[in-house]
Amino acid sequence: MINPNFRLLVISTSTIYGSGYLEYIREEILDFLQTDELLFIPFARPSGISHDEYTLNLKTALEPFDISVSGLHTSKDPVETIRKAKAIFIGGGNTFLLLKTLYELGLVEVIKEVVAKGTPYMGSSAGSNLTGLTIGTTNDMPIVYPPCFEALQFLPFNINPHYLDPDLLSTHKGETRETRINEFHKFNNQAVIGLREGSWLRVENGNIELKGSLSARVFRPGVSPKELDSGILPESIYL
Amino acid sequence: MINPNFRLLVISTSTIYGSGYLEYIREEILDFLQTDELLFIPFARPSGISHDEYTLNLKTALEPFDISVSGLHTSKDPVETIRKAKAIFIGGGNTFLLLKTLYELGLVEVIKEVVAKGTPYMGSSAGSNLTGLTIGTTNDMPIVYPPCFEALQFLPFNINPHYLDPDLLSTHKGETRETRINEFHKFNNQAVIGLREGSWLRVENGNIELKGSLSARVFRPGVSPKELDSGILPESIYL
Repeated sequence: MINPNFRLLVISTSTIYGSGYLEYIREEILDFLQTDELLFIPFARPSGISHDEYTLNLKTALEPFDISVSGLHTSKDPVETIRKAKAIFIGGGNTFLLLKTLYELGLVEVIKEVVAKGTPYMGSSAGSNLTGLTIGTTNDMPIVYPPCFEALQFLPFNINPHYLDPDLLSTHKGETRETRINEFHKFNNQAVIGLREGSWLRVENGNIELKGSLSARVFRPGVSPKELDSGILPESIYL
Repeated sequence: MINPNFRLLVISTSTIYGSGYLEYIREEILDFLQTDELLFIPFARPSGISHDEYTLNLKTALEPFDISVSGLHTSKDPVETIRKAKAIFIGGGNTFLLLKTLYELGLVEVIKEVVAKGTPYMGSSAGSNLTGLTIGTTNDMPIVYPPCFEALQFLPFNINPHYLDPDLLSTHKGETRETRINEFHKFNNQAVIGLREGSWLRVENGNIELKGSLSARVFRPGVSPKELDSGILPESIYL
Protein backbone atom coordinates (compact mmCIF):
# COMPACT_ATOMS: atom_id res chain seq x y z
CA MET A 1 0.00 0.00 0.00
CA ILE A 2 2.80 2.43 0.90
CA ASN A 3 5.32 2.90 -1.89
CA PRO A 4 8.46 1.12 -0.59
CA ASN A 5 10.60 3.90 -2.10
CA PHE A 6 9.07 6.48 0.21
CA ARG A 7 11.39 7.88 2.84
CA LEU A 8 9.40 10.34 4.93
CA LEU A 9 9.76 12.04 8.29
CA VAL A 10 6.39 13.53 9.24
CA ILE A 11 6.88 15.74 12.29
CA SER A 12 4.06 17.23 14.39
CA THR A 13 6.00 20.30 15.49
CA SER A 14 9.45 21.74 14.82
CA THR A 15 9.78 22.94 18.38
CA ILE A 16 8.67 21.59 21.72
CA TYR A 17 8.28 23.67 24.84
CA GLY A 18 11.57 24.75 26.39
CA SER A 19 13.75 23.56 23.50
CA GLY A 20 15.28 25.16 20.38
CA TYR A 21 14.21 24.83 16.74
CA LEU A 22 14.29 21.11 15.80
CA GLU A 23 16.52 20.46 18.82
CA TYR A 24 14.47 17.65 20.35
CA ILE A 25 14.43 15.71 17.09
CA ARG A 26 17.91 16.45 15.78
CA GLU A 27 19.32 12.97 16.24
CA GLU A 28 16.40 11.47 14.32
CA ILE A 29 16.83 13.98 11.50
CA LEU A 30 20.54 13.28 11.16
CA ASP A 31 19.87 9.55 11.14
CA PHE A 32 17.06 9.93 8.62
CA LEU A 33 18.66 12.24 6.07
CA GLN A 34 21.70 10.17 5.17
CA THR A 35 23.04 13.14 3.22
CA ASP A 36 24.72 16.41 4.08
CA GLU A 37 22.65 18.55 1.70
CA LEU A 38 19.12 19.64 2.45
CA LEU A 39 16.80 21.65 0.19
CA PHE A 40 14.48 23.77 2.34
CA ILE A 41 11.08 24.92 1.12
CA PRO A 42 10.23 27.94 3.32
CA PHE A 43 6.93 28.94 1.66
CA ALA A 44 4.70 28.43 4.73
CA ARG A 45 6.29 31.49 6.40
CA PRO A 46 5.38 30.98 10.11
CA SER A 47 4.33 34.30 11.70
CA GLY A 48 4.83 35.76 8.23
CA ILE A 49 8.64 35.78 8.43
CA SER A 50 10.53 36.08 5.15
CA HIS A 51 11.87 33.15 3.18
CA ASP A 52 15.42 34.32 3.92
CA GLU A 53 14.84 34.64 7.63
CA TYR A 54 13.15 31.25 7.81
CA THR A 55 15.98 29.59 5.89
CA LEU A 56 18.51 31.22 8.19
CA ASN A 57 16.73 29.68 11.20
CA LEU A 58 17.14 26.25 9.68
CA LYS A 59 20.77 26.86 8.76
CA THR A 60 21.46 27.89 12.35
CA ALA A 61 19.82 24.71 13.61
CA LEU A 62 21.47 22.22 11.24
CA GLU A 63 24.68 23.60 9.82
CA PRO A 64 26.64 23.00 13.06
CA PHE A 65 25.83 19.34 12.43
CA ASP A 66 27.33 19.39 8.94
CA ILE A 67 24.07 19.63 7.02
CA SER A 68 24.28 22.31 4.37
CA VAL A 69 20.93 24.03 3.79
CA SER A 70 19.72 25.92 0.70
CA GLY A 71 16.36 27.71 0.37
CA LEU A 72 14.27 26.89 -2.71
CA HIS A 73 13.16 30.54 -2.96
CA THR A 74 16.65 31.48 -4.19
CA SER A 75 16.56 29.01 -7.09
CA LYS A 76 16.05 30.31 -10.65
CA ASP A 77 14.71 26.91 -11.73
CA PRO A 78 12.86 25.41 -8.76
CA VAL A 79 11.64 22.36 -10.68
CA GLU A 80 15.18 21.43 -11.63
CA THR A 81 16.42 22.22 -8.11
CA ILE A 82 13.87 19.79 -6.67
CA ARG A 83 14.84 17.14 -9.22
CA LYS A 84 18.46 17.41 -8.12
CA ALA A 85 17.83 17.68 -4.36
CA LYS A 86 19.45 15.10 -2.10
CA ALA A 87 16.70 15.61 0.49
CA ILE A 88 13.76 18.00 0.92
CA PHE A 89 12.37 19.66 4.04
CA ILE A 90 9.10 21.59 3.99
CA GLY A 91 8.84 23.63 7.17
CA GLY A 92 5.74 24.68 9.09
CA GLY A 93 3.72 27.88 8.99
CA ASN A 94 0.47 28.47 7.14
CA THR A 95 -0.74 25.40 5.25
CA PHE A 96 -3.01 27.36 2.86
CA LEU A 97 -0.16 29.66 1.86
CA LEU A 98 2.21 26.74 1.47
CA LEU A 99 -0.11 24.70 -0.74
CA LYS A 100 -1.11 27.71 -2.87
CA THR A 101 2.54 28.62 -3.45
CA LEU A 102 3.47 25.06 -4.46
CA TYR A 103 0.58 24.94 -6.96
CA GLU A 104 1.35 28.40 -8.33
CA LEU A 105 4.98 27.54 -8.93
CA GLY A 106 4.01 24.20 -10.47
CA LEU A 107 5.95 22.20 -7.88
CA VAL A 108 3.40 19.69 -6.63
CA GLU A 109 3.98 17.14 -9.38
CA VAL A 110 7.75 17.27 -9.28
CA ILE A 111 7.83 16.82 -5.50
CA LYS A 112 5.55 13.80 -5.84
CA GLU A 113 7.75 12.45 -8.60
CA VAL A 114 11.08 12.69 -6.77
CA VAL A 115 9.69 11.42 -3.46
CA ALA A 116 8.13 8.45 -5.27
CA LYS A 117 11.62 7.65 -6.55
CA GLY A 118 13.19 7.83 -3.09
CA THR A 119 14.26 11.42 -2.34
CA PRO A 120 13.93 11.78 1.45
CA TYR A 121 11.09 14.15 2.42
CA MET A 122 10.89 15.75 5.82
CA GLY A 123 7.88 17.84 6.83
CA SER A 124 7.00 19.65 9.99
CA SER A 125 3.54 20.94 10.92
CA ALA A 126 2.19 22.45 7.64
CA GLY A 127 4.82 20.42 5.80
CA SER A 128 3.41 17.32 7.49
CA ASN A 129 -0.17 18.22 6.59
CA LEU A 130 0.98 18.03 2.98
CA THR A 131 2.01 14.38 3.27
CA GLY A 132 -1.63 13.39 3.74
CA LEU A 133 -4.47 13.24 1.24
CA THR A 134 -5.77 16.78 1.79
CA ILE A 135 -5.15 19.81 3.95
CA GLY A 136 -8.70 19.42 5.31
CA THR A 137 -7.42 18.79 8.83
CA THR A 138 -5.01 21.69 9.14
CA ASN A 139 -5.33 23.95 12.19
CA ASP A 140 -4.41 27.06 10.21
CA MET A 141 -6.45 30.06 9.13
CA PRO A 142 -7.39 30.25 5.46
CA ILE A 143 -5.38 33.43 4.86
CA VAL A 144 -5.14 32.78 1.10
CA TYR A 145 -7.25 30.69 -1.32
CA PRO A 146 -5.45 27.69 -2.81
CA PRO A 147 -6.70 26.16 -6.10
CA CYS A 148 -7.78 23.00 -4.24
CA PHE A 149 -7.23 21.26 -0.90
CA GLU A 150 -5.49 18.16 -2.35
CA ALA A 151 -2.07 17.64 -0.79
CA LEU A 152 0.95 15.56 -1.82
CA GLN A 153 -0.87 12.35 -0.91
CA PHE A 154 2.08 10.24 0.12
CA LEU A 155 0.04 8.78 2.96
CA PRO A 156 -3.42 7.22 2.60
CA PHE A 157 -4.85 9.33 5.44
CA ASN A 158 -4.78 12.89 6.77
CA ILE A 159 -2.50 14.36 9.41
CA ASN A 160 -3.57 16.67 12.20
CA PRO A 161 -0.32 18.13 13.53
CA HIS A 162 -0.01 19.78 16.97
CA TYR A 163 -2.84 17.47 18.05
CA LEU A 164 -4.26 18.82 21.29
CA ASP A 165 -6.40 16.96 23.78
CA PRO A 166 -9.56 18.72 25.00
CA ASP A 167 -8.88 20.92 28.01
CA LEU A 168 -11.40 19.63 30.52
CA LEU A 169 -11.07 22.74 32.65
CA SER A 170 -11.65 25.20 29.83
CA THR A 171 -14.69 27.46 29.80
CA HIS A 172 -14.13 28.31 26.12
CA LYS A 173 -16.97 27.21 23.86
CA GLY A 174 -15.10 27.09 20.54
CA GLU A 175 -14.90 23.58 19.09
CA THR A 176 -12.29 21.17 20.46
CA ARG A 177 -9.87 19.57 18.04
CA GLU A 178 -11.76 16.29 18.33
CA THR A 179 -15.08 17.99 17.48
CA ARG A 180 -13.49 19.58 14.42
CA ILE A 181 -12.15 16.24 13.19
CA ASN A 182 -15.56 14.66 13.76
CA GLU A 183 -17.07 17.42 11.58
CA PHE A 184 -14.44 16.57 8.94
CA HIS A 185 -15.65 12.98 8.98
CA LYS A 186 -19.19 13.95 8.10
CA PHE A 187 -17.85 14.82 4.64
CA ASN A 188 -14.62 12.82 4.27
CA ASN A 189 -13.81 9.15 4.73
CA GLN A 190 -10.06 8.99 5.24
CA ALA A 191 -8.56 8.27 8.65
CA VAL A 192 -6.99 11.23 10.47
CA ILE A 193 -3.91 10.74 12.62
CA GLY A 194 -3.63 13.34 15.36
CA LEU A 195 0.11 13.69 16.03
CA ARG A 196 0.84 15.23 19.40
CA GLU A 197 3.76 17.64 19.77
CA GLY A 198 6.88 15.54 20.22
CA SER A 199 5.62 12.73 17.94
CA TRP A 200 6.48 11.93 14.35
CA LEU A 201 6.02 9.28 11.71
CA ARG A 202 8.98 7.72 9.97
CA VAL A 203 8.12 6.01 6.71
CA GLU A 204 10.58 3.56 5.12
CA ASN A 205 10.47 0.16 3.41
CA GLY A 206 6.71 0.43 3.06
CA ASN A 207 6.22 0.79 6.83
CA ILE A 208 4.86 3.72 8.79
CA GLU A 209 6.34 3.93 12.26
CA LEU A 210 5.07 6.22 15.02
CA LYS A 211 8.01 7.58 16.99
CA GLY A 212 8.51 9.84 20.00
CA SER A 213 7.35 9.09 23.50
CA LEU A 214 3.64 9.84 23.07
CA SER A 215 0.74 7.92 21.62
CA ALA A 216 -1.15 9.31 18.61
CA ARG A 217 -4.90 9.55 18.25
CA VAL A 218 -6.56 7.94 15.26
CA PHE A 219 -9.94 9.10 14.03
CA ARG A 220 -12.08 7.19 11.55
CA PRO A 221 -15.60 8.00 10.48
CA GLY A 222 -18.31 6.36 12.50
CA VAL A 223 -16.11 4.77 15.16
CA SER A 224 -14.65 6.02 18.43
CA PRO A 225 -11.15 7.49 18.23
CA LYS A 226 -8.33 5.18 19.25
CA GLU A 227 -5.00 5.74 20.94
CA LEU A 228 -2.09 4.29 19.02
CA ASP A 229 1.19 3.41 20.73
CA SER A 230 4.54 4.04 19.12
CA GLY A 231 5.74 1.39 16.69
CA ILE A 232 4.80 0.30 13.19
CA LEU A 233 1.22 1.23 12.34
CA PRO A 234 -0.98 -1.73 11.44
CA GLU A 235 -2.51 -1.23 8.00
CA SER A 236 -5.96 -1.73 9.53
CA ILE A 237 -5.62 1.77 10.99
CA TYR A 238 -5.85 3.45 7.63
CA LEU A 239 -7.08 1.00 5.00
CA MET B 1 -19.86 53.79 4.90
CA ILE B 2 -22.22 51.26 6.52
CA ASN B 3 -25.52 50.96 4.65
CA PRO B 4 -28.04 52.62 7.02
CA ASN B 5 -30.59 49.93 6.12
CA PHE B 6 -28.42 47.23 7.64
CA ARG B 7 -29.80 45.66 10.81
CA LEU B 8 -27.28 43.10 11.99
CA LEU B 9 -26.56 41.19 15.17
CA VAL B 10 -23.08 39.67 14.90
CA ILE B 11 -22.59 37.29 17.81
CA SER B 12 -19.27 35.70 18.80
CA THR B 13 -20.79 32.55 20.30
CA SER B 14 -24.28 31.14 20.68
CA THR B 15 -23.48 29.72 24.08
CA ILE B 16 -21.32 30.88 26.94
CA TYR B 17 -19.99 28.61 29.65
CA GLY B 18 -22.63 27.40 32.12
CA SER B 19 -25.59 28.76 30.17
CA GLY B 20 -28.07 27.33 27.61
CA TYR B 21 -28.21 27.88 23.84
CA LEU B 22 -28.55 31.67 23.20
CA GLU B 23 -29.69 32.11 26.81
CA TYR B 24 -27.24 34.86 27.75
CA ILE B 25 -28.20 36.99 24.77
CA ARG B 26 -31.95 36.29 24.61
CA GLU B 27 -33.10 39.75 25.68
CA GLU B 28 -30.92 41.36 23.05
CA ILE B 29 -32.24 39.02 20.36
CA LEU B 30 -35.87 39.71 21.26
CA ASP B 31 -35.20 43.44 21.25
CA PHE B 32 -33.35 43.24 17.94
CA LEU B 33 -35.70 41.05 15.93
CA GLN B 34 -38.85 43.16 16.15
CA THR B 35 -40.77 40.31 14.56
CA ASP B 36 -42.14 36.96 15.73
CA GLU B 37 -40.96 35.00 12.68
CA LEU B 38 -37.38 33.89 12.21
CA LEU B 39 -35.93 32.05 9.21
CA PHE B 40 -33.09 29.80 10.37
CA ILE B 41 -30.25 28.76 8.06
CA PRO B 42 -28.78 25.62 9.68
CA PHE B 43 -26.20 24.74 7.01
CA ALA B 44 -23.10 25.08 9.23
CA ARG B 45 -24.11 21.91 11.14
CA PRO B 46 -22.05 22.21 14.37
CA SER B 47 -20.58 18.81 15.34
CA GLY B 48 -22.18 17.55 12.14
CA ILE B 49 -25.74 17.51 13.57
CA SER B 50 -28.57 17.37 11.03
CA HIS B 51 -30.44 20.42 9.77
CA ASP B 52 -33.58 19.18 11.54
CA GLU B 53 -31.84 18.64 14.85
CA TYR B 54 -30.16 22.03 14.69
CA THR B 55 -33.40 23.79 13.86
CA LEU B 56 -35.08 22.01 16.75
CA ASN B 57 -32.42 23.37 19.12
CA LEU B 58 -33.27 26.88 18.01
CA LYS B 59 -37.01 26.30 18.28
CA THR B 60 -36.51 25.06 21.83
CA ALA B 61 -34.52 28.18 22.68
CA LEU B 62 -36.80 30.78 21.11
CA GLU B 63 -40.33 29.46 20.72
CA PRO B 64 -41.13 29.86 24.46
CA PHE B 65 -40.55 33.56 23.80
CA ASP B 66 -43.09 33.69 20.98
CA ILE B 67 -40.61 33.57 18.12
CA SER B 68 -41.68 31.06 15.52
CA VAL B 69 -38.73 29.40 13.79
CA SER B 70 -38.58 27.72 10.38
CA GLY B 71 -35.55 25.98 8.88
CA LEU B 72 -34.54 27.00 5.35
CA HIS B 73 -33.62 23.38 4.54
CA THR B 74 -37.33 22.48 4.43
CA SER B 75 -38.13 25.12 1.80
CA LYS B 76 -38.82 24.05 -1.80
CA ASP B 77 -37.84 27.50 -3.04
CA PRO B 78 -35.12 28.83 -0.74
CA VAL B 79 -34.54 32.01 -2.77
CA GLU B 80 -38.19 32.96 -2.48
CA THR B 81 -38.26 31.95 1.20
CA ILE B 82 -35.35 34.31 1.89
CA ARG B 83 -37.06 37.11 -0.07
CA LYS B 84 -40.14 36.73 2.12
CA ALA B 85 -38.33 36.25 5.46
CA LYS B 86 -39.09 38.68 8.28
CA ALA B 87 -35.67 38.05 9.81
CA ILE B 88 -32.78 35.66 9.13
CA PHE B 89 -30.49 33.81 11.54
CA ILE B 90 -27.42 31.92 10.34
CA GLY B 91 -26.20 29.69 13.14
CA GLY B 92 -22.65 28.57 13.90
CA GLY B 93 -20.81 25.40 12.98
CA ASN B 94 -18.32 24.94 10.15
CA THR B 95 -17.74 28.11 8.14
CA PHE B 96 -16.39 26.34 5.03
CA LEU B 97 -19.42 24.07 4.87
CA LEU B 98 -21.76 27.00 5.45
CA LEU B 99 -20.26 29.18 2.72
CA LYS B 100 -20.03 26.31 0.22
CA THR B 101 -23.68 25.40 0.79
CA LEU B 102 -24.84 29.00 0.33
CA TYR B 103 -22.91 29.31 -2.94
CA GLU B 104 -24.11 25.92 -4.20
CA LEU B 105 -27.73 26.80 -3.54
CA GLY B 106 -27.26 30.23 -5.13
CA LEU B 107 -28.25 32.05 -1.93
CA VAL B 108 -25.40 34.50 -1.43
CA GLU B 109 -26.81 37.20 -3.69
CA VAL B 110 -30.37 37.04 -2.40
CA ILE B 111 -29.23 37.26 1.23
CA LYS B 112 -27.12 40.31 0.37
CA GLU B 113 -30.09 41.80 -1.47
CA VAL B 114 -32.65 41.43 1.34
CA VAL B 115 -30.26 42.51 4.08
CA ALA B 116 -29.33 45.61 2.05
CA LYS B 117 -33.04 46.44 2.01
CA GLY B 118 -33.41 46.05 5.77
CA THR B 119 -34.21 42.41 6.61
CA PRO B 120 -32.69 41.84 10.06
CA TYR B 121 -29.73 39.44 9.93
CA MET B 122 -28.47 37.63 12.97
CA GLY B 123 -25.33 35.50 12.85
CA SER B 124 -23.51 33.52 15.45
CA SER B 125 -19.93 32.21 15.16
CA ALA B 126 -19.72 30.89 11.53
CA GLY B 127 -22.79 33.03 10.75
CA SER B 128 -20.86 36.02 12.07
CA ASN B 129 -17.78 35.20 10.02
CA LEU B 130 -20.02 35.60 6.99
CA THR B 131 -20.87 39.22 7.81
CA GLY B 132 -17.25 40.22 7.14
CA LEU B 133 -15.36 40.54 3.87
CA THR B 134 -14.00 36.98 3.76
CA ILE B 135 -13.92 33.81 5.82
CA GLY B 136 -10.13 34.18 5.99
CA THR B 137 -10.19 34.57 9.77
CA THR B 138 -12.40 31.62 10.66
CA ASN B 139 -11.15 29.19 13.31
CA ASP B 140 -12.70 26.20 11.55
CA MET B 141 -11.15 23.30 9.70
CA PRO B 142 -11.42 23.33 5.91
CA ILE B 143 -13.56 20.17 5.80
CA VAL B 144 -14.99 21.04 2.36
CA TYR B 145 -13.74 23.29 -0.47
CA PRO B 146 -15.90 26.36 -1.13
CA PRO B 147 -15.77 28.10 -4.56
CA CYS B 148 -14.10 31.15 -2.95
CA PHE B 149 -13.54 32.68 0.50
CA GLU B 150 -15.61 35.85 -0.13
CA ALA B 151 -18.35 36.24 2.46
CA LEU B 152 -21.51 38.36 2.59
CA GLN B 153 -19.45 41.52 3.04
CA PHE B 154 -21.90 43.56 5.10
CA LEU B 155 -19.02 44.85 7.21
CA PRO B 156 -15.84 46.46 5.84
CA PHE B 157 -13.61 44.20 7.96
CA ASN B 158 -13.29 40.56 9.03
CA ILE B 159 -14.61 38.92 12.16
CA ASN B 160 -12.73 36.45 14.32
CA PRO B 161 -15.40 34.88 16.54
CA HIS B 162 -14.61 33.04 19.79
CA TYR B 163 -11.57 35.29 20.04
CA LEU B 164 -9.19 33.78 22.56
CA ASP B 165 -6.33 35.50 24.35
CA PRO B 166 -2.99 33.68 24.36
CA ASP B 167 -2.70 31.31 27.31
CA LEU B 168 0.50 32.46 28.93
CA LEU B 169 0.84 29.23 30.87
CA SER B 170 0.46 26.96 27.87
CA THR B 171 3.31 24.74 26.74
CA HIS B 172 1.61 24.12 23.37
CA LYS B 173 3.60 25.37 20.39
CA GLY B 174 0.75 25.66 17.88
CA GLU B 175 0.13 29.24 16.77
CA THR B 176 -1.88 31.54 19.06
CA ARG B 177 -4.93 33.28 17.65
CA GLU B 178 -3.01 36.54 17.51
CA THR B 179 -0.17 34.93 15.54
CA ARG B 180 -2.68 33.50 13.07
CA ILE B 181 -4.29 36.91 12.54
CA ASN B 182 -0.86 38.47 12.06
CA GLU B 183 -0.18 35.87 9.35
CA PHE B 184 -3.50 36.85 7.74
CA HIS B 185 -2.31 40.46 7.61
CA LYS B 186 0.75 39.57 5.59
CA PHE B 187 -1.64 38.90 2.70
CA ASN B 188 -4.79 40.87 3.49
CA ASN B 189 -5.37 44.51 4.41
CA GLN B 190 -8.74 44.59 6.12
CA ALA B 191 -9.06 45.08 9.87
CA VAL B 192 -10.00 42.01 11.91
CA ILE B 193 -12.21 42.34 14.96
CA GLY B 194 -11.63 39.58 17.48
CA LEU B 195 -14.95 39.15 19.31
CA ARG B 196 -14.59 37.41 22.64
CA GLU B 197 -17.26 34.98 23.78
CA GLY B 198 -20.06 37.02 25.33
CA SER B 199 -19.56 39.97 22.94
CA TRP B 200 -21.50 40.96 19.86
CA LEU B 201 -21.89 43.78 17.36
CA ARG B 202 -25.23 45.43 16.75
CA VAL B 203 -25.46 47.34 13.50
CA GLU B 204 -28.25 49.85 12.94
CA ASN B 205 -28.65 53.35 11.48
CA GLY B 206 -25.22 53.14 9.93
CA ASN B 207 -23.55 52.54 13.31
CA ILE B 208 -21.66 49.50 14.56
CA GLU B 209 -21.95 49.07 18.30
CA LEU B 210 -19.88 46.64 20.37
CA LYS B 211 -22.05 45.15 23.10
CA GLY B 212 -21.60 42.70 25.98
CA SER B 213 -19.37 43.25 28.96
CA LEU B 214 -16.00 42.56 27.32
CA SER B 215 -13.68 44.58 25.14
CA ALA B 216 -12.88 43.40 21.61
CA ARG B 217 -9.44 43.20 20.04
CA VAL B 218 -8.82 44.99 16.77
CA PHE B 219 -6.02 43.95 14.45
CA ARG B 220 -4.78 46.03 11.54
CA PRO B 221 -1.80 45.31 9.33
CA GLY B 222 1.45 46.87 10.48
CA VAL B 223 0.23 48.27 13.80
CA SER B 224 -0.11 46.81 17.27
CA PRO B 225 -3.50 45.31 18.13
CA LYS B 226 -5.83 47.52 20.15
CA GLU B 227 -8.45 46.84 22.77
CA LEU B 228 -11.80 48.37 21.99
CA ASP B 229 -14.36 49.12 24.69
CA SER B 230 -18.06 48.58 24.21
CA GLY B 231 -19.93 51.36 22.46
CA ILE B 232 -20.15 52.65 18.92
CA LEU B 233 -17.04 51.82 16.89
CA PRO B 234 -15.22 54.84 15.51
CA GLU B 235 -14.88 54.58 11.74
CA SER B 236 -11.13 54.99 12.11
CA ILE B 237 -11.03 51.42 13.38
CA TYR B 238 -11.93 49.95 10.05
CA LEU B 239 -11.55 52.55 7.30
